[in-house]
Amino acid sequence: MSPSRYTYLGPEGTFTEAALRTLPEAATRELIPMVSVPATLDAVRSGEAAAALVPIENSVEGGVTATLDELATGGPLMIYREVLLPIAFALLVRPGVKLSDIKTVTGHPVAQPQVRKWLAKHLPHAVWESAASNADGARLVQEGRYDAAFAGEFAAATYGLEPLVSDIHDAQNAQTRFVLVGRPARPAARTGADKTSVVIWLGDDHPGALLELLQEYAARGVNMMRIESRPTGEGIGRYCFSVDCEGHITDRRVAEALMGLKRICPKVRFLGSYPRAGVDPSDVGELRHGTSDADFVVAAEWLARCQDGRA
Amino acid sequence: MSPSRYTYLGPEGTFTEAALRTLPEAATRELIPMVSVPATLDAVRSGEAAAALVPIENSVEGGVTATLDELATGGPLMIYREVLLPIAFALLVRPGVKLSDIKTVTGHPVAQPQVRKWLAKHLPHAVWESAASNADGARLVQEGRYDAAFAGEFAAATYGLEPLVSDIHDAQNAQTRFVLVGRPARPAARTGADKTSVVIWLGDDHPGALLELLQEYAARGVNMMRIESRPTGEGIGRYCFSVDCEGHITDRRVAEALMGLKRICPKVRFLGSYPRAGVDPSDVGELRHGTSDADFVVAAEWLARCQDGRA
Amino acid sequence: MSPSRYTYLGPEGTFTEAALRTLPEAATRELIPMVSVPATLDAVRSGEAAAALVPIENSVEGGVTATLDELATGGPLMIYREVLLPIAFALLVRPGVKLSDIKTVTGHPVAQPQVRKWLAKHLPHAVWESAASNADGARLVQEGRYDAAFAGEFAAATYGLEPLVSDIHDAQNAQTRFVLVGRPARPAARTGADKTSVVIWLGDDHPGALLELLQEYAARGVNMMRIESRPTGEGIGRYCFSVDCEGHITDRRVAEALMGLKRICPKVRFLGSYPRAGVDPSDVGELRHGTSDADFVVAAEWLARCQDGRA
Amino acid sequence: MSPSRYTYLGPEGTFTEAALRTLPEAATRELIPMVSVPATLDAVRSGEAAAALVPIENSVEGGVTATLDELATGGPLMIYREVLLPIAFALLVRPGVKLSDIKTVTGHPVAQPQVRKWLAKHLPHAVWESAASNADGARLVQEGRYDAAFAGEFAAATYGLEPLVSDIHDAQNAQTRFVLVGRPARPAARTGADKTSVVIWLGDDHPGALLELLQEYAARGVNMMRIESRPTGEGIGRYCFSVDCEGHITDRRVAEALMGLKRICPKVRFLGSYPRAGVDPSDVGELRHGTSDADFVVAAEWLARCQDGRA
Repeated sequence: MSPSRYTYLGPEGTFTEAALRTLPEAATRELIPMVSVPATLDAVRSGEAAAALVPIENSVEGGVTATLDELATGGPLMIYREVLLPIAFALLVRPGVKLSDIKTVTGHPVAQPQVRKWLAKHLPHAVWESAASNADGARLVQEGRYDAAFAGEFAAATYGLEPLVSDIHDAQNAQTRFVLVGRPARPAARTGADKTSVVIWLGDDHPGALLELLQEYAARGVNMMRIESRPTGEGIGRYCFSVDCEGHITDRRVAEALMGLKRICPKVRFLGSYPRAGVDPSDVGELRHGTSDADFVVAAEWLARCQDGRA
Repeated sequence: MSPSRYTYLGPEGTFTEAALRTLPEAATRELIPMVSVPATLDAVRSGEAAAALVPIENSVEGGVTATLDELATGGPLMIYREVLLPIAFALLVRPGVKLSDIKTVTGHPVAQPQVRKWLAKHLPHAVWESAASNADGARLVQEGRYDAAFAGEFAAATYGLEPLVSDIHDAQNAQTRFVLVGRPARPAARTGADKTSVVIWLGDDHPGALLELLQEYAARGVNMMRIESRPTGEGIGRYCFSVDCEGHITDRRVAEALMGLKRICPKVRFLGSYPRAGVDPSDVGELRHGTSDADFVVAAEWLARCQDGRA
Repeated sequence: MSPSRYTYLGPEGTFTEAALRTLPEAATRELIPMVSVPATLDAVRSGEAAAALVPIENSVEGGVTATLDELATGGPLMIYREVLLPIAFALLVRPGVKLSDIKTVTGHPVAQPQVRKWLAKHLPHAVWESAASNADGARLVQEGRYDAAFAGEFAAATYGLEPLVSDIHDAQNAQTRFVLVGRPARPAARTGADKTSVVIWLGDDHPGALLELLQEYAARGVNMMRIESRPTGEGIGRYCFSVDCEGHITDRRVAEALMGLKRICPKVRFLGSYPRAGVDPSDVGELRHGTSDADFVVAAEWLARCQDGRA
Repeated sequence: MSPSRYTYLGPEGTFTEAALRTLPEAATRELIPMVSVPATLDAVRSGEAAAALVPIENSVEGGVTATLDELATGGPLMIYREVLLPIAFALLVRPGVKLSDIKTVTGHPVAQPQVRKWLAKHLPHAVWESAASNADGARLVQEGRYDAAFAGEFAAATYGLEPLVSDIHDAQNAQTRFVLVGRPARPAARTGADKTSVVIWLGDDHPGALLELLQEYAARGVNMMRIESRPTGEGIGRYCFSVDCEGHITDRRVAEALMGLKRICPKVRFLGSYPRAGVDPSDVGELRHGTSDADFVVAAEWLARCQDGRA
């Protein structure tokens, strides 16, 4: 194990690297770019790296399926942190290139829908070709293969390019969510503003199964924050669900909901409890009546008294 | 305390006495008839009796409100046994009286609707007046105040009467359910065919409160067997609910459901877990998938492993 | 048919008569006391009376089972009005009788629990015997059989008695709810503050049946106001449910909920939609989002456009 | 409009073309390959084509986000048919090339995870580079840029290649689902084995919103077949849901569920009712009790009688 090494979805100059550098602990780690999400995560599984940062969700493009599927069905890993990064692109060009000179543009396929409207307005005749990553697009511009690349502005220096236009993003509030992943261990400490992630397989094709799944959360007043269906690979119509909820596995309402899922579903994979990025514990909304840890303790004590004939 | 003394809703010769005598332990107890449900139960509360048998539900007339209300709001008591008794009436007369002689009949008000059709057919012109109990009606016939009384056939000898007609019951399967009540102590031992009784107060007038109450049971796969609303006495529209469910308080699904009720409702009174009368543990239906004690244990162990990073 | 004649649960001088006289239309009707709830209602069924007033619920004693069962399983009738009457008793005595003279008291069995605490405090040694009605108790006092009767103060004059003590009621807010019942016809007109009553039989013994019943209401945002289980007479464990909900059968959310009940339950009896006593339409709370008639119309029009390919 | 012209996601030789050719009507249409999902659909929106076939879901890779998002938020279109195609790849090479010659392979990015295990086993050292489509990959092999391409075997002839290995698919039952899309019009006729697709936006962030959505289906016994969350583009945590359910919009249970969704959700887009591919009406499971059209009719007639006083 190399506790000093973190991998991330590379190459250098991508938003993932920028997200990783927002974590204080990254300053003292060796940061290693990898060529793919599986490779990034495999380095953690094998012990070559202590943790890995990968994108999991984009507010424009949706879930990052490679990450979702690796976490669901690859060798066990757990999430310990999340990072939210606002996404804005710069149009990077070789020094001296003007907007009117641009005939070809490149970038990661995920970037395209996020700059489509901008392209249609400012470069309606430019031809788009996808690159393996935004940073790779920048490299290809450096090499002269394309005229311009959409990438993070921070990538310009690395590739000797200039940001011709900055802060390009079709959607307001465009964000990408990244997760810091490690080998299974004790979950991150409870902060009071936490999130818990699991992957849940539904037992059979019975039509109410998803409703029952959601009711395990609802019955304990646990708010669901994200649900994403993913194919199990067993054929059209067979799905598992990647679910985030509010709260920490040591919160009793969350623990009881997870146990409920475990009881009724054939398979549940716990992916971790970790602090919600950008949310202060003092900003977390009120719990539903009767679902605090104190309420659980009172009820458990009452039950014990009932069982002892002292209620 | 007099462990040798049991009270029951008297007088002698009622169905309640007959029900009590079906219990093996009654053979070695002093059985004391009392004049009312409150008096029967107060003898237990005060320690004059070890237990009391009172009717709680009749398949024709419904819940016995005096019993329901005493258990809900009187000094704390618990149910340890239930007895189901088929109800059939005999028409008791003084020796020599013929059907055509009968002008007046009596019996407990609860008996009337159970023999109404029989009366309309066989004694259409007889005048009914209610007595304080079926046995009391028999006594009043003995005294000559009425011509005939509906009562259990077993009451005839006590009052020097004869059963002119036997096995009278308008409804098929007419039954009364009785409960053996004692001071709060450890619940009856789990048999595998058990029932758990509680009284639940809903917090405020919010319209979904009853649905939430039922969902606490449903979420754990616990079957509800009986629900009866009773006024709280605070005005029209304010109710508490007397609820029986399958299972024993030491069954984990039941325990979790009860704790759920305790958390979301302002008041829950545990009335006991006790064997279901007439049901053999081998006849109890299958549990819903994922709700056995073994399923709960597996889920709790899994949760512990998740919290320890060993899932 | 005698449109000029209304029956009520007699005898004269009961709270039921007092409740009936609060209805403006009663002033022009012949008001006929009857000896029992069945007799009161049968007069309507047979056409001898246009309508009947009977008690259906008491805030201390709960549902009036004779009324509930007659409406559920007797010849079809419908509710057109409800009346809420605060219940307070007077202690009626023959002129000159003092509190210290009273050895025996009487009244309707339903009255007893409503004055129990008062009796325990002021007449701890008086013996209670039940009468067929509060008014009948007054008559028995007039005849000298008992020393005092609990009844409505308005009954004093009828029986030549005096109210020794007035406004006796153990519970705050003690009320009785009465319903004005007629033969089936168009429901009362919608007022905006309405109530709809039905009786629902559950199909089989499947444990989730009651939950499904409630969900038919909840799914359309219809608030349930009262639910009362009654035995079907087929044996312990078989119940039907008497249910009141907010709203009128011509409100679309109520209509859809009723149709939902009709579809999933083997039997539903509609008992009427009628104005809520004492509630002004302007005081009715807000509907749940999306459940107004306007919302239903918008949705139906949208569906029609979808089916026509014009959405 | 050109009723004779169908577009599809090209280029020629893709699985989409193969799927389109399984439709009998395709035989008499001019089939036009397009460069992207948006372009394929825009041709229908503009009237240049009568219909378009695009992939919407893959049993290995999940939802095709370009299609989901175009149908959700692009100019209105409707689905009239679906096609299920088993997916198996051939490894296409220039004549004479042997497995041991292969250093570089290409294919659509979606193909890669479906052949990853095969590659790891048979060509562990080959370098993968993605192509714009499987057919495009074949073209690049023809041009000599790569040594081999994964594509449908049917693409070999078009590009002068040979299938070196056939029937490659890591997952059993790998399938892709395609939809035939046209401008909004009357839905496809009901067959008895139908599917209905909608996109639903949840109103606000209230945590139970998804549960309420599912309950609109469940309350009417309508089985949900697929649910997929997609970002609305308004920021992390804001989703809309693409949902398929069993049944046809003219089935009353489906119609009522859709109207329920329309009432409680701020926006619902109807995407069509159409025959379920590969399912015979005689194979469709039984409806939940009380949810057939006949049940709805009986309930509506009963309601009308209640409202008329003839129940």
